Amino acid sequence: MSIKIALLGFGTVASGIPFLLKENSDKLVQAAHSKIEITKVLVKDIAEKERLLAAGGNHFNFVTTIDEILNDKEISIVVELMGRIEPAKNFIIRALEVGKHVVTANKDLLAVHGAELLEIANKNKVALYYEAAVAGGIPILRTLVNSLASDKITRLLGVVNGTSNFMLTKMVEEGWSYEAALSEAQQLGFAESDPTNDVDGIDAAYKMVILSQFAFGMTVKFEDVAHQGIRKITPEDVTVAQQLGYVVKLVGSIEETKSGLAAEVTPTFLPKSHPLASVNGVMNAVYVESIGVGESMYYGPGAGQKPTATSVVADIIRIVRRINEGTVGKAFNEFQRELVLAKREDIKSPYCFSILTPDSKSQVLRLAEIFNTEDVSLQQILQQGTDGNTARVVIITHAVNKTQLENVIRKLQATSGFKLLNTFKVLGE
Amino acid sequence: MSIKIALLGFGTVASGIPFLLKENSDKLVQAAHSKIEITKVLVKDIAEKERLLAAGGNHFNFVTTIDEILNDKEISIVVELMGRIEPAKNFIIRALEVGKHVVTANKDLLAVHGAELLEIANKNKVALYYEAAVAGGIPILRTLVNSLASDKITRLLGVVNGTSNFMLTKMVEEGWSYEAALSEAQQLGFAESDPTNDVDGIDAAYKMVILSQFAFGMTVKFEDVAHQGIRKITPEDVTVAQQLGYVVKLVGSIEETKSGLAAEVTPTFLPKSHPLASVNGVMNAVYVESIGVGESMYYGPGAGQKPTATSVVADIIRIVRRINEGTVGKAFNEFQRELVLAKREDIKSPYCFSILTPDSKSQVLRLAEIFNTEDVSLQQILQQGTDGNTARVVIITHAVNKTQLENVIRKLQATSGFKLLNTFKVLGE
Repeated sequence: MSIKIALLGFGTVASGIPFLLKENSDKLVQAAHSKIEITKVLVKDIAEKERLLAAGGNHFNFVTTIDEILNDKEISIVVELMGRIEPAKNFIIRALEVGKHVVTANKDLLAVHGAELLEIANKNKVALYYEAAVAGGIPILRTLVNSLASDKITRLLGVVNGTSNFMLTKMVEEGWSYEAALSEAQQLGFAESDPTNDVDGIDAAYKMVILSQFAFGMTVKFEDVAHQGIRKITPEDVTVAQQLGYVVKLVGSIEETKSGLAAEVTPTFLPKSHPLASVNGVMNAVYVESIGVGESMYYGPGAGQKPTATSVVADIIRIVRRINEGTVGKAFNEFQRELVLAKREDIKSPYCFSILTPDSKSQVLRLAEIFNTEDVSLQQILQQGTDGNTARVVIITHAVNKTQLENVIRKLQATSGFKLLNTFKVLGE
Repeated sequence: MSIKIALLGFGTVASGIPFLLKENSDKLVQAAHSKIEITKVLVKDIAEKERLLAAGGNHFNFVTTIDEILNDKEISIVVELMGRIEPAKNFIIRALEVGKHVVTANKDLLAVHGAELLEIANKNKVALYYEAAVAGGIPILRTLVNSLASDKITRLLGVVNGTSNFMLTKMVEEGWSYEAALSEAQQLGFAESDPTNDVDGIDAAYKMVILSQFAFGMTVKFEDVAHQGIRKITPEDVTVAQQLGYVVKLVGSIEETKSGLAAEVTPTFLPKSHPLASVNGVMNAVYVESIGVGESMYYGPGAGQKPTATSVVADIIRIVRRINEGTVGKAFNEFQRELVLAKREDIKSPYCFSILTPDSKSQVLRLAEIFNTEDVSLQQILQQGTDGNTARVVIITHAVNKTQLENVIRKLQATSGFKLLNTFKVLGE
């Protein structure tokens, strides 16, 4: 018996799916216990259908209305690969409501409307799987569900945005400016003409929303994930980091403190020996700290046609297997706890402050007093004269909490003569 | 309803299991759909039982004969953590035959007798899971089964022996000799007094046997995995590697060539930028090349109480879940193909030869002629004068096949004046 599926959309990722189904058919049948057959593909309109047919897609059954798929009783699984919120959301809801299982790679949709969709899937006893939504080809969600079910995760760190990581790699390894790196990323097609979601940490924050459910059982909202991007990072910041033994990366983190969960995305100094420090270019990695395994890392491509399609097909196989076993419909992730967010005073980390000061002897003392007033102790101070009139002072603190951090930043900004150039979270302690 | 399990053995790893079951109980119940309860623990004899009771183990029900567990109808899962071949093998077979599911971390046993045990499990429709047998805390086997079911793996590389990797890290990063590194590993308890299995690549070869089943669906025999260890590696080899841009690691590899599968464990020059090159100390990693994901890596501790116990408990959870679903008994890995080993001429890689020659001008020419006769082209030559009378010549070739490799080695050994100090596989091309 073969299981019939439909694709919504036939862009880059979607067209990787028939490739995998064909190249790997024997193995797939052993894993899924059935053949898997794409019987319908939804495209936008007649014009697109004709374009695809003309381009050699005549072995696909293209349709132009969702009803042709929803009303087709033979189709068990709908694979949504259109992207964006609408009409994807509407189509997924309708598919779930008519009892079809859904696989999607739509991260934005899941990060913002995931809870609603999961509830509809649950009510209709159908599966909604989305391994490809986080870190494309890295099988991180299913690994958290299955293999780390036995473990208690205390912190998760991720380099999960390929575009910004590509740019930072160019800045760190080749001394490029932010602007040059962005322009290269756009030319290579890694960054869109409006790069906001990538460079401002929004895309990474979406992924933290989804990862928090799988790693900590808590449904953090997008608004709960503070995000700061890489726009302000200068070649000088990168150089200072290197001098102090660090690499700059845009890191998403989720941590369980004693009062609750804290999630954020922020430019971070990683010690050079940290496994995430050598994740370069468009590659992604998720690093997990836990009471059982201790430390583990999952590394791979964060995007791309075949990596993403591989994760999508892994989801399809799992659903087909469960259809055959008669156990389909359980939630992708069953780990659930009440959401409790951390208190600001429990969210602690060392920080790096890069400050421009008048180049006179007493300035470091004035700076030290500001930190001292907020009860923040210092780990490292690096002073670099710049033009004779001003100096650049880089201070790495011991752990500070969010309240202390804000107070220090406010005071630095309010003190005449000082200019706070940048702040970085520092991994350590 | 709670599921009752028994532990065979109560050494380091076994005693980590009650820790995880307790620390993580809410999450475990959500994942397994049942409570999990250790109702019996098999220990060697009355003396050990009394020692453990006196040491505070009085909340465990220690038994001294396997029959007390096998005859206990309430026990569903037997967890073997005694190690070695016998009596572990006998106890596992008997447990499977009376219909109990088995979880084990016993790599040696599985590598040598796995096929027999899997057949018995299959015949009795019970589960035999062993995630912890390969790379301790890294969830690599289940990831290959579930997430990479949709992919076709072309090559797998692993740094999977923590002891030898600890030693090589000391040799590479701190210039230690093999002997000093071994002595340190023994003092820290990473290496046994007889370190043969670790330093000669035997342990890593066992892991390749198991990985070949999961990654390629082929049951390679231990004898089919050529293994060479790290005993002969000198500080000079390590230095030369660094000069040429490489890091020396003991790497297990399994590759599907056009004629079949080739598996081996051998000291390897890894380019410094390769993700495996920064896997240091006792950490392990498995690097996977595939047609879908492209490249992915799974990194974590290869041994240790809690990491290993975490993998064992993940297996237990999976079995309990399947018991509750009524789907228990399927093979851990269902991917199976006929074993076809590669022809020697299809197993190709660049190699590095380190040769001591009389220090006269014509020696490099004589060397070049040997390689030329075997149709091997050279990539890099590095000549270092040593004491005025001899020179050390290091040659990195382009890809050579196994027949060419052997011929070159034989000729170098047979040519008077030359001394072949060492050979390394080189990752590249």
